[in-house]
Parts: sequence; structure tokens; C-alpha cells
Amino acid sequence: MQPFEQRVGESFRRQAFMATLGATITIEKQGEVEIRFPFHASLTQQNDFVHAGAIASILDSACGYAALSMAPEGHDVLSVEFKVNLLAPAVGEEFWARAQVKRAGKTLIVCAADAYARKDGQEKIVATMLATIMVLRHQS
Amino acid sequence: MQPFEQRVGESFRRQAFMATLGATITIEKQGEVEIRFPFHASLTQQNDFVHAGAIASILDSACGYAALSMAPEGHDVLSVEFKVNLLAPAVGEEFWARAQVKRAGKTLIVCAADAYARKDGQEKIVATMLATIMVLRHQS
Amino acid sequence: MQPFEQRVGESFRRQAFMATLGATITIEKQGEVEIRFPFHASLTQQNDFVHAGAIASILDSACGYAALSMAPEGHDVLSVEFKVNLLAPAVGEEFWARAQVKRAGKTLIVCAADAYARKDGQEKIVATMLATIMVLRHQS
Amino acid sequence: MQPFEQRVGESFRRQAFMATLGATITIEKQGEVEIRFPFHASLTQQNDFVHAGAIASILDSACGYAALSMAPEGHDVLSVEFKVNLLAPAVGEEFWARAQVKRAGKTLIVCAADAYARKDGQEKIVATMLATIMVLRHQS
Repeated sequence: MQPFEQRVGESFRRQAFMATLGATITIEKQGEVEIRFPFHASLTQQNDFVHAGAIASILDSACGYAALSMAPEGHDVLSVEFKVNLLAPAVGEEFWARAQVKRAGKTLIVCAADAYARKDGQEKIVATMLATIMVLRHQS
Repeated sequence: MQPFEQRVGESFRRQAFMATLGATITIEKQGEVEIRFPFHASLTQQNDFVHAGAIASILDSACGYAALSMAPEGHDVLSVEFKVNLLAPAVGEEFWARAQVKRAGKTLIVCAADAYARKDGQEKIVATMLATIMVLRHQS
Repeated sequence: MQPFEQRVGESFRRQAFMATLGATITIEKQGEVEIRFPFHASLTQQNDFVHAGAIASILDSACGYAALSMAPEGHDVLSVEFKVNLLAPAVGEEFWARAQVKRAGKTLIVCAADAYARKDGQEKIVATMLATIMVLRHQS
Repeated sequence: MQPFEQRVGESFRRQAFMATLGATITIEKQGEVEIRFPFHASLTQQNDFVHAGAIASILDSACGYAALSMAPEGHDVLSVEFKVNLLAPAVGEEFWARAQVKRAGKTLIVCAADAYARKDGQEKIVATMLATIMVLRHQS
């Protein structure tokens, strides 16, 4: 396992909110990360779609970990801001966010991410995010 | 109770994800809504701050319900997009999002919302959102 | 020439601001549009880079025309909102924005666009946009 | 004149694009800036409204200068990203953007700005922006 995979995995396991969402991570390669969760009734909004906030949460974490996988050792990342467009109702059995680093600067990393739903075997894009992540020295 | 308060309250109670976050709603007045939750370890990220996605979720729902309180009877709302700036780590005992309608059109309503944390009796802004909400006839 | 190419071309020629920027349009195909301008000193900010607002302007118009190329006859488009990340200083001899429709709904069309600079024969991404466009019946 | 007023004024005068727009600046106080331009046919889009890009340009510069007025001596600012919602067609005789610093960090400053139009003596909000600005040492 690469050092960046270890750092991302350890940080992800400390994100209790990801466990609350039932989410798991896959590191595709340096700068590219996928986070997914199965449908659960605890994540829904008023029409039984998955809440936009739950989708935004895995998009945000996927962006953060795509950025962390590019950051130098001994550094952590923090979301500065993100913007998400909800493209279709989040309906299905499984949902995932795939993030890619779009540009990595020394201090700021910009990531793009798309979220998908699988329903009856069909995949569909449900949201897209553009996020700015800050790279910081570990505070210890 | 005003009809818009009833509509907002009923819809909020159907948002299972808000219960998962431990969130409650207060309708300040038509076009202005507050959603809050107490700190819970299940909502944290890797540094024990509340996850940006949990904060974004109450900001988004607050924007949606501020919009719903302005929408005509028999209509529902859907988030088109939102952008959030994270201004400070979400650390504290309680967190709340306060949303206001900025401009209400027939089809689209634009809302602005700020999120705050209370820590040791001190309030602090932790995030701010700009959101676009769509007004739709109820599909029934 | 396809009807959508004619509609886009006619609308673009009525955008006086695009002439002010020295911009020209190319319709790559339905749902994909490119707008470019050469460097001109009248477009700069304090460091002699092209102003972010000029780059945002061609990104926005490119998104609008990508959307218009998908809209039914007799309709016009209006930008609802956009978000742009500035990825590198806009330095060079020529600048262009390439927009693609990401999802086309009946009322709203979401577009993604990237802006590039060419300097000494080298192309570089300088900005990226995510935009929401509204489709409206012509008011006449 | 305060040092920050001088720094902002000097930088603004070097923004050739602001002259192209016919724009002038007023520094309301530290952290608050207004930029305005009169209507000119060279700034319009296909319906003779002022182009969203021209409005975004003064919103962006207003945010940048609100940030610069807070930055330490010997520093410059750069827009990291901004998001703008277009709230009403930009129709009128005069247009202005008023920006305020929302939170000033050491490296990043977040600003909010609203744009207005005056038509037949009536003021109307036409757009709102949320922007992230980076503070950098002067490269000299």
C-alpha cells in the first residue's frame, strides 16, 4: 500500500460521519477517490429521495481525500468551499461520489466530483461538485 | 398556526435525514427558517469537528424551508444548487443554520443562509450558503 | 447550417459585450460551444493578467450558448447563477472558454466550462465554471 | 487618506478592464467597497440587458478590493473563486456592486457582495456574489 493510501484510509476511518452515512472509500489512484453508500431510510428527505446534504457530504469528503492523496506527508486538508448542482433526484439502491483533482497548488487544491445513483441496474448522474480544498501542516 | 408553518413542519418531519442529524426546526417568519442540532460524535470528521456535510445539510434544508414558506399552497421545493463557504471549524455544543429568502421568483427562489456554532457560551459564524431552490407543483 | 447554429450565431452577434471583449464564437456541435478572444490591454487587471471578470464573461456566454443550442425553437436562455474557480493567472496571447451541457432539463440546463490560455504555443487551463441556465419562451 | 485607501485606489487605477467598463470605485470603509458604472450599450447582451459578465466583473473587483483593504501592507490579492446568482435582469441607467468582508483569515478572505441597478430612480438588487480571495506577498 502506498503511503498516500494509508494516510487517506486512516483519516477516512476517523470520520465518524462517514460511518453514520454507511460510506466506504476506494482510492482509485493518486488524485482520484470514490466514496459510496447503500440506500438507507435514515438518509432521506421528504419525498424519500436521499437528502442533497448526504450526497454533498460524500462529494465533499471525496474531494477532500482526492486532495489529501496529493498533499505532502505531514499535511492535512480542510474544505474551503464547495458548490454542488443537483442534477436528478437521488433515487436508487446505491450512491457514489467520484472526485478528481483538477488543479493542485501548494496551498489550494481544486477538485471536481460527480455523484451517481444505481437503480435497477441503471447508473445515472445525480449531482456534480466543484470544491476548493486547503492544504495545512498537521497541528500537533 | 399559519398554513405555511404547517406545511413546513409536516415536510420537515418527513425528512428522516434531519432526525439522523438530531435536528429541529424553528420557523421565524415567512421566508426565514432556523434549523439546529446539538453536537454528537456521530457527525464528526477526522479532527472531531462537525463534518462540513452535516453543516451543509442543515443550511440546505433551512434554505429549502425558507423557500417553501413562500411557495403557494400545493407546491413543493427542490434544491437546484448551493454553494457553501466554510469560515471556521465547526466546533462547539450546538450548531444552527439560519436561512432567509433573498429573492422569490415564480419558479426559482434564491436563499442566503449562515451557520453558527456555540462553544462555551460564545457564538461564532462557521459557514455561509447561497442556494437556488425550485418551486414545483406537488406530484400526486 | 443547422437551425440551432443560426439561432446561436444571431444571438451572439447581438451581445455587444462580446464585441467589446473582441470575442468570437464556434459552435462545436449541439450542446458544445467555444468562445475566444485575443489578449488586449483593455481587459487587464492590476498585474496585467486578463481580468477574472473577462474570463468569467466568455465562460458564462459559452455556457449560455451551449444551453441555447439544446433549447427548443422560440426559446431564449438566461443565466441563473454560475461559479468559477480561477486556476491560474490568465496570461497569454489568446484565451478561450469551452462549454458543454452537463444535463438538460425542460426548465434548467446545467453546463460545465473550462477556460484556457495559450502562451508561447503552450495551452494551460486557467479557470473552470459550473453554471445553471434557465430556458424561457421568447418574450415578443 | 488612509494607507489602505491609497493601496486600493492605486491598484484599481491599474485595472484597465475597469476603465473599459467605465467603472469607478468608492472605499466606504476598511472591508467595504463599492464599484459602479453607468449604462453603456457596449456592455449589453442579446436582450439589451447589461451582460452578467460585466456585473460579475464589478462584483469580483469589489470583493477583491474589500479584501485588499484588510490585507497587510506589501500584500496583493487574487480571486480564488466566486459564485454569483443573477436575481433580476440588469436594466437601468446605473449599476453598482457593494462588497463586504465576511471573514478575514490570514491566507483567505471571504467576501459577500450585492449588485444593484437604478432605473427611473428606483433601486433594485440584480445579483449577489460569494467570493474567496487569497492574500499574497507582493512578487517584486
